[in-house]
Amino acid sequence: MLWQDQLCRVVLVEERDYPGFCRVILNRHVREMTDLDAATRQSLMRVVFAAEQALRELMQPAKINLASLGNMVAHLHWHVIARFADDRHFPASIWSEPRRAGVPHPVDRAALQRALHTLLQAVAE
Amino acid sequence: MLWQDQLCRVVLVEERDYPGFCRVILNRHVREMTDLDAATRQSLMRVVFAAEQALRELMQPAKINLASLGNMVAHLHWHVIARFADDRHFPASIWSEPRRAGVPHPVDRAALQRALHTLLQAVAE
Repeated sequence: MLWQDQLCRVVLVEERDYPGFCRVILNRHVREMTDLDAATRQSLMRVVFAAEQALRELMQPAKINLASLGNMVAHLHWHVIARFADDRHFPASIWSEPRRAGVPHPVDRAALQRALHTLLQAVAE
Repeated sequence: MLWQDQLCRVVLVEERDYPGFCRVILNRHVREMTDLDAATRQSLMRVVFAAEQALRELMQPAKINLASLGNMVAHLHWHVIARFADDRHFPASIWSEPRRAGVPHPVDRAALQRALHTLLQAVAE
């Protein structure tokens, strides 16, 4: 767990190939973004974009991937993934067939947690 | 082209297996959501969520998939995809290995265009 509030939580996904992979999970059970009102959608996206910003600051990825799929678990959540040219699937999605063994790019978990808190505190004030 | 304004355009993707697949493409050249200011991000997401809403109203999909990847074309765009239990990849992502031949669920293009205009007009007023 990296961060949480009344609306959602941010966890660091345990994924060997993708250390810079956060998941933003809504606390209540909702299937789709458009099941939320506009203000709540906006609050959730602020957290998603804070996770993106924190990963960018700490890891300087080639690209950030954002996705809310939920076909397997229809409980609203967002994947925020730091991607690199030498990772396991680049430039394909992480759900595609692997392209290579892949080099995992490490991230400092405590620094990520701090960055997220700082970014989300700034938003809340 | 389904809809456009100063910020972005919405196109219906020509994808045989996924007739209910919209792409929201930013007009200016930017790589990541966090390269935009918060207000612009919000404006862009409003269009993404309008596309989701329009697809839900017209197609009643099992799930909507939202994704901004951009690993191949690092020009900010969002995929908004209506998913069904009998489609080519369900419950995997559309970028995964196919699971079956897949049944394409048709969408009325003119109705989608009208729904999108109505939803985005309501937002603008």
